[in-house]
Amino acid sequence: MNLILIDPNEIHLDRVVLTDRRCQHILKILRAEAGDTLKIGIINSHIGTGLIENLSPKAVTLKINATTPPPPKVPTRLILALPRPIMLKRVLSQAASLGVEHIYLIKANRVEKSYYSASIMAEAALNEALRLGLEQAMDCLLPRITVHTRFRPFIEDVLPPLLSEDTVSLIAHPEPPAFLDPGLLPTPNTPVAVAIGPEGGWVDYEIQRFHELGFISFSLGPRILRVDTAVPAILSQLDLLRHLKTGVQQ
Amino acid sequence: MNLILIDPNEIHLDRVVLTDRRCQHILKILRAEAGDTLKIGIINSHIGTGLIENLSPKAVTLKINATTPPPPKVPTRLILALPRPIMLKRVLSQAASLGVEHIYLIKANRVEKSYYSASIMAEAALNEALRLGLEQAMDCLLPRITVHTRFRPFIEDVLPPLLSEDTVSLIAHPEPPAFLDPGLLPTPNTPVAVAIGPEGGWVDYEIQRFHELGFISFSLGPRILRVDTAVPAILSQLDLLRHLKTGVQQ
Repeated sequence: MNLILIDPNEIHLDRVVLTDRRCQHILKILRAEAGDTLKIGIINSHIGTGLIENLSPKAVTLKINATTPPPPKVPTRLILALPRPIMLKRVLSQAASLGVEHIYLIKANRVEKSYYSASIMAEAALNEALRLGLEQAMDCLLPRITVHTRFRPFIEDVLPPLLSEDTVSLIAHPEPPAFLDPGLLPTPNTPVAVAIGPEGGWVDYEIQRFHELGFISFSLGPRILRVDTAVPAILSQLDLLRHLKTGVQQ
Repeated sequence: MNLILIDPNEIHLDRVVLTDRRCQHILKILRAEAGDTLKIGIINSHIGTGLIENLSPKAVTLKINATTPPPPKVPTRLILALPRPIMLKRVLSQAASLGVEHIYLIKANRVEKSYYSASIMAEAALNEALRLGLEQAMDCLLPRITVHTRFRPFIEDVLPPLLSEDTVSLIAHPEPPAFLDPGLLPTPNTPVAVAIGPEGGWVDYEIQRFHELGFISFSLGPRILRVDTAVPAILSQLDLLRHLKTGVQQ
């Protein structure tokens, strides 16, 4: 936890009283004392400091001063075939820490229906996983997350209006093996939609439907990666391509 | 498990009898039957097939035919400040699945000494974590792994002879924020040594010692990533730079 996240509605007269795991973190990990200043972030607002005014074994009172904008969101939409619950939790934190704007959890042929009834799928649990990623990355802008239980309504109704004319749409798929390339992103801020399949991969029908919407296949090479490796790998390669474009423009 | 890994010394007259988790995987996950052919890899040798000759609830006999070379190792050496045990297991699998050649687990100021006595640090447990990554990535070349309990002997005695004249040496560090750049790698096969710090980061002294050996600082941006996000992010950015060089040479 490199930053303590606070909900705007927890704040009254610039003060917040923490009694949950954040309180325990301040006491036991940071071993902070009254008068210390901690790094805080207000969800979907600013980053700043919290001055410890009061501290007991069960509650910490912080005086909040937050005026620094958080790092900008990366204009990437992550379309993810719903992973196994234990993997989902980890991947949501990774995606949040890498700054993606919106995560779409979708059904694919090789996604087990039972995954949708896992406890992690409760809205509070999904948000908790995203918050862990933000706390790590020192960000306070929560990515949006939407859950889609059927493939066809997603690909036919939800997805097409999201793809603005300048969006670059990509789908991770081992064949044909084309790597990501700086030519794909015209500018550092080009919106990207990137689709990453389930364990076992996309089926041909799914690939075909994405291609019909203009998605371009790319791969990371011959190695098949687990989703908790593939997601940071792909998002960070896209980040690097964005930075290369920044260099070119200078 | 996309490939079943077999030790060369388990094979007698082209046959292997599996009785451990690989046997259970074949029976319960793959639900294979006698006569089926499975993808196998022989550690540090070739990839091929295993024909199920015999199968009982406790043992599976495969006839092995392995002549395909595995994907080439990536000429990257990963120098990793020893992470927390639970994270280490995951990161070793990730690094193995991404094909790194050698992993050096080193002590840094912000690495807790107790990590060295965790059960994962037994040679068999380290290898098991690497094998999980190879099984996932369909590779059979085990990365080398060495454990270093003190920083100075590593940086003064172990590291310098490893850095051949053409090695590009990099250290992940948020400041100054320079991103990885295609100019860093002259060819797709340039040897790279990349050092990734502990939770809490390197201390100044450590950075200085790496710089003295010619290591160049780079960053992934303002976001602080957990090691299980940073390792795949960095290794895959290096992979992308290698592929961009392949394009240039064609």
